[in-house]
Amino acid sequence: MNIESIYHRPKNNYAYAYNDKTLHIRIRTKKNDIEKVNLIFGDPYTWNEDGWIFSTKHMTISGSDQLFDYWFVEVAPEFRRMRYGFELMSGNETMVYGEKGFFDQIPTDDTSYFFCFPFLNKADVFHAPDWVKDTVWYQIFPERFANGDPKINPENTLPWGSTEPKWDNFFGGDFEGIIQHIDHIVELGITGLYFTPIFKAYSNHKYDTIDYMEIDPQFGDKATFKRLVDVCHQHGIKVMLDAVFNHSGYYFPPFQDVLKNQEHSKYKDWFHIRDFPIITKPRPNYDTFAFTEQMPKLNTENAEVKEYLLNVARYWIEEFDIDGWRLDVANEVDHSFWREFRKTVKSVKPDAYILGEIWHDSMPWLQGDQFDAVMNYPFTQSALDFFAKGTINADVFAQRISHVLHSYPNNVNEVSFNLLGSHDTPRILTIANENKDRLKLLFLFQLTFIGSPCIYYGDEIGMTGGQDPGCRKCMIWDKQEQDLELFEFVQKLISLRKKVPALGNKGEFNIIESNTETNHIIYEKRSKNESIFIAINNSEQPIQISIPFLAKNDEVTNLWNNEKQLTSDVEELSLPGLGFTILQSRKL
Amino acid sequence: MNIESIYHRPKNNYAYAYNDKTLHIRIRTKKNDIEKVNLIFGDPYTWNEDGWIFSTKHMTISGSDQLFDYWFVEVAPEFRRMRYGFELMSGNETMVYGEKGFFDQIPTDDTSYFFCFPFLNKADVFHAPDWVKDTVWYQIFPERFANGDPKINPENTLPWGSTEPKWDNFFGGDFEGIIQHIDHIVELGITGLYFTPIFKAYSNHKYDTIDYMEIDPQFGDKATFKRLVDVCHQHGIKVMLDAVFNHSGYYFPPFQDVLKNQEHSKYKDWFHIRDFPIITKPRPNYDTFAFTEQMPKLNTENAEVKEYLLNVARYWIEEFDIDGWRLDVANEVDHSFWREFRKTVKSVKPDAYILGEIWHDSMPWLQGDQFDAVMNYPFTQSALDFFAKGTINADVFAQRISHVLHSYPNNVNEVSFNLLGSHDTPRILTIANENKDRLKLLFLFQLTFIGSPCIYYGDEIGMTGGQDPGCRKCMIWDKQEQDLELFEFVQKLISLRKKVPALGNKGEFNIIESNTETNHIIYEKRSKNESIFIAINNSEQPIQISIPFLAKNDEVTNLWNNEKQLTSDVEELSLPGLGFTILQSRKL
Repeated sequence: MNIESIYHRPKNNYAYAYNDKTLHIRIRTKKNDIEKVNLIFGDPYTWNEDGWIFSTKHMTISGSDQLFDYWFVEVAPEFRRMRYGFELMSGNETMVYGEKGFFDQIPTDDTSYFFCFPFLNKADVFHAPDWVKDTVWYQIFPERFANGDPKINPENTLPWGSTEPKWDNFFGGDFEGIIQHIDHIVELGITGLYFTPIFKAYSNHKYDTIDYMEIDPQFGDKATFKRLVDVCHQHGIKVMLDAVFNHSGYYFPPFQDVLKNQEHSKYKDWFHIRDFPIITKPRPNYDTFAFTEQMPKLNTENAEVKEYLLNVARYWIEEFDIDGWRLDVANEVDHSFWREFRKTVKSVKPDAYILGEIWHDSMPWLQGDQFDAVMNYPFTQSALDFFAKGTINADVFAQRISHVLHSYPNNVNEVSFNLLGSHDTPRILTIANENKDRLKLLFLFQLTFIGSPCIYYGDEIGMTGGQDPGCRKCMIWDKQEQDLELFEFVQKLISLRKKVPALGNKGEFNIIESNTETNHIIYEKRSKNESIFIAINNSEQPIQISIPFLAKNDEVTNLWNNEKQLTSDVEELSLPGLGFTILQSRKL
Repeated sequence: MNIESIYHRPKNNYAYAYNDKTLHIRIRTKKNDIEKVNLIFGDPYTWNEDGWIFSTKHMTISGSDQLFDYWFVEVAPEFRRMRYGFELMSGNETMVYGEKGFFDQIPTDDTSYFFCFPFLNKADVFHAPDWVKDTVWYQIFPERFANGDPKINPENTLPWGSTEPKWDNFFGGDFEGIIQHIDHIVELGITGLYFTPIFKAYSNHKYDTIDYMEIDPQFGDKATFKRLVDVCHQHGIKVMLDAVFNHSGYYFPPFQDVLKNQEHSKYKDWFHIRDFPIITKPRPNYDTFAFTEQMPKLNTENAEVKEYLLNVARYWIEEFDIDGWRLDVANEVDHSFWREFRKTVKSVKPDAYILGEIWHDSMPWLQGDQFDAVMNYPFTQSALDFFAKGTINADVFAQRISHVLHSYPNNVNEVSFNLLGSHDTPRILTIANENKDRLKLLFLFQLTFIGSPCIYYGDEIGMTGGQDPGCRKCMIWDKQEQDLELFEFVQKLISLRKKVPALGNKGEFNIIESNTETNHIIYEKRSKNESIFIAINNSEQPIQISIPFLAKNDEVTNLWNNEKQLTSDVEELSLPGLGFTILQSRKL
């Protein structure tokens, strides 16, 4: 037994409250090293003459990555408190593992040998808004979605789509345009819109805010925005805005005041100025986002800044009824600020969604006290590497997806913001070398996975574009130029996800098979009453696969074409190159 | 290389901000498996044509436990942000480790392979009050320290020390008694007093509060308490009270109201009542501390309860100028409450100390947003097992101490509440089988270790007693019955700790040697200018040891007897059974 590779620590992805009554316990062991694991658990305060009273419960492998197996079990301790350890078995060897290390036998004279989940307090349970689990998002970069009101075009606005997007050109996208094209969004089946920044700013991307309390005039006014939110809500679509609180823009009046009055400015503590006078070359002598002089970092520890930003957070919810905030560069702002931000937001709208932009391991922000989710770029990268680029094989893909899932609690995974691309990454069709079949597999995986999927505007009609600003082209509205077959494909997936809840978050995700030779994967989405098997052939060659149905001669529905067959008929089946199948077998 | 046993994850004891400018990075590897480790680090946003620009820095082993080596390095990233990974070397093999796993070479095309410490925000730095590092605590169980005012004796008060302590007997200890005996505390060198609960309660231990806003009349009134605090402050002694916020007492009026009015009580949501009518047998049908019906768990998620308790926290600081709160059963109260508690306490007294009673791994409470420290029972248990009971050998002791230290950030360790015993554990002299030499080694280790040491009243004069209530005997005031030699021994250690800052938290603690055959340990406390070696012989037999001084013929001071010698003279020395030496060598 490789005991050094065994890992567990309470109160993170290894031990957490799944809901008010249930704890989830995981343990990591070296891959293929351990044959059986039992959870040893009991109330810290129940003893008899023989010592501590405990129970045991069998754990199962819920997934594996390149190096490790992850074991899982669910328990609902009667008095919401638990001491626990693990009984690990391999061959003839049995070891007991607890906070104090490894033992040959279960020690019962003291509970301090064991791990502790001291009390399941409701206030500490991670709980994101319920609606997020059922939402399919659509991300809009407002400058490039649709120009509905040429009267408010900014200076030098170019004809729609007349040229490539650049750092500094404008095409006049606005709210009116979005309202006019709401049908496109509704038809696709979207239930949440995420807008990149809409507040008054200098650039076309608006991440350099000038005024957090005003709509950028090129998008419209507050009345138009209110109308946009209303139109969305009428169509059952939630609205999420982008909160750029890590930094302001260069033309944010408080920063301008500091530039003008230097150390005498009353706003000098609103930023992190290292020296006066302020310089911007060769590098700014004030903290910035990256080394971008246009984006001075806000001092979110300053009471006035805090009050100002929290008021912004409150204002757009209270006055415009928005449903969520996406937090730009969320990882560089202090945790303390985000805790106050959460309290503020939830106090005005308890079911608002708080989504952080973090590209790396985000457990410290997902403990229930800060964010509801992060943008799941590790998911994105794995999906792109496998389906779009083909740079990793089926095994590595399965391991990487499993790794992401086991890095977080399950209740976090269920609301994770699973995007394939954004305004910060090349278009997925471009990454897929313009191969539409690969693009379809990407959408298929994204929309049958758990979490809260998000589609970047235009990806559903086959738009292309490289690294930003290339990925920020004007939306194509000419039906002739739209890939309508792709649109229908995505539309069908979204509609299936809604119709068959197990395809979404009602279904437990399990990778059943990954094969490096054929390069196919089979995964299952399982709910109480049904089991859905999704098989994807990620190679260009046709392959033969077999689906491991539990029962013979059960009825199976092919959810893609609605054909009904018996399990025995589809156990062995062939998939064309880059083909797939979705088979639903109901339990009786 | 055993790569599966390598562990690192940011934002806990493995990567944390030590202060506003400095990050500490640790990595765990299998014991004796890796020969060399370098930190690979750089700003996330500095790139050139070859890719990401990084530096490397050599890491050193800061300690080992039974299974692992822990490597350490300190860095101060210029822009307070850092991506980083590890270069691990063993024999001819070199591996690079980052968030995305293991690599043969340092990848420079993307920083996402690496771990991320996104920004060192001051608001998130763990920072306990500065005074705690220099404090030596003394714990008083007020009912048993001294009866100074017999007029306020509770009913049936027994003559002082006339009989064994029981669950329900009273000896009339009070504040007046403490004031009268303040000289004893001052002479010992104490700079902090921790009182177990003093609020109106039913029992002699007062952990079953009746009124959090009133002093228990058996101890005195508010004026006397104020006087006690003043007397302490005049003598440079801080005062810490016990906040029993997990549960109230049975006779707490809101609970009595619920007992009387059942589901119609306006206080019914102040507790966790599972069913009405309330029953107490066979087990209470409301949540309690353990299964103790006298201690109904408070619903700290209820807004009224929160307001009430936070007001208590504020009141005793504002009105009586107390310096800290020790939080009873802190692990069973929700984190959310403790975050608000911290804000409240620090808003009225920024340098108040917040100490949680947690017996197990406490990282989730020590992230800077909740507690300043926990009662370090893992330290206690290791010290008792080695010095008092002799049930573990020198190696295991060294490993266990190293394990505790590496479970937390260094800035946490520096203010850890290191006790040898309390009102909840048998007296240390009793555990040491009444061997005073062993008791002295316990005090020696405690008072030359890092952290904030605490002495339980009477241990310094050789009091005995078994598991509580046995350990709660009346303080012995008859000098004839006090072990004055022991008192002077402890007094001398405390005075040395004050005089030689490196013996306290100014000295970095390193275990230099642990020998299972002779059962001795040698550890070093090192500051910029000096190196102090402490050698302890934990066997009954005399032994020969050698101290690994760096330079020959340097002057060395024996801090215990003030003799000055040359390093060459004391390199080899003999220690009597259960003997010790403290040798200071100054750097020039």
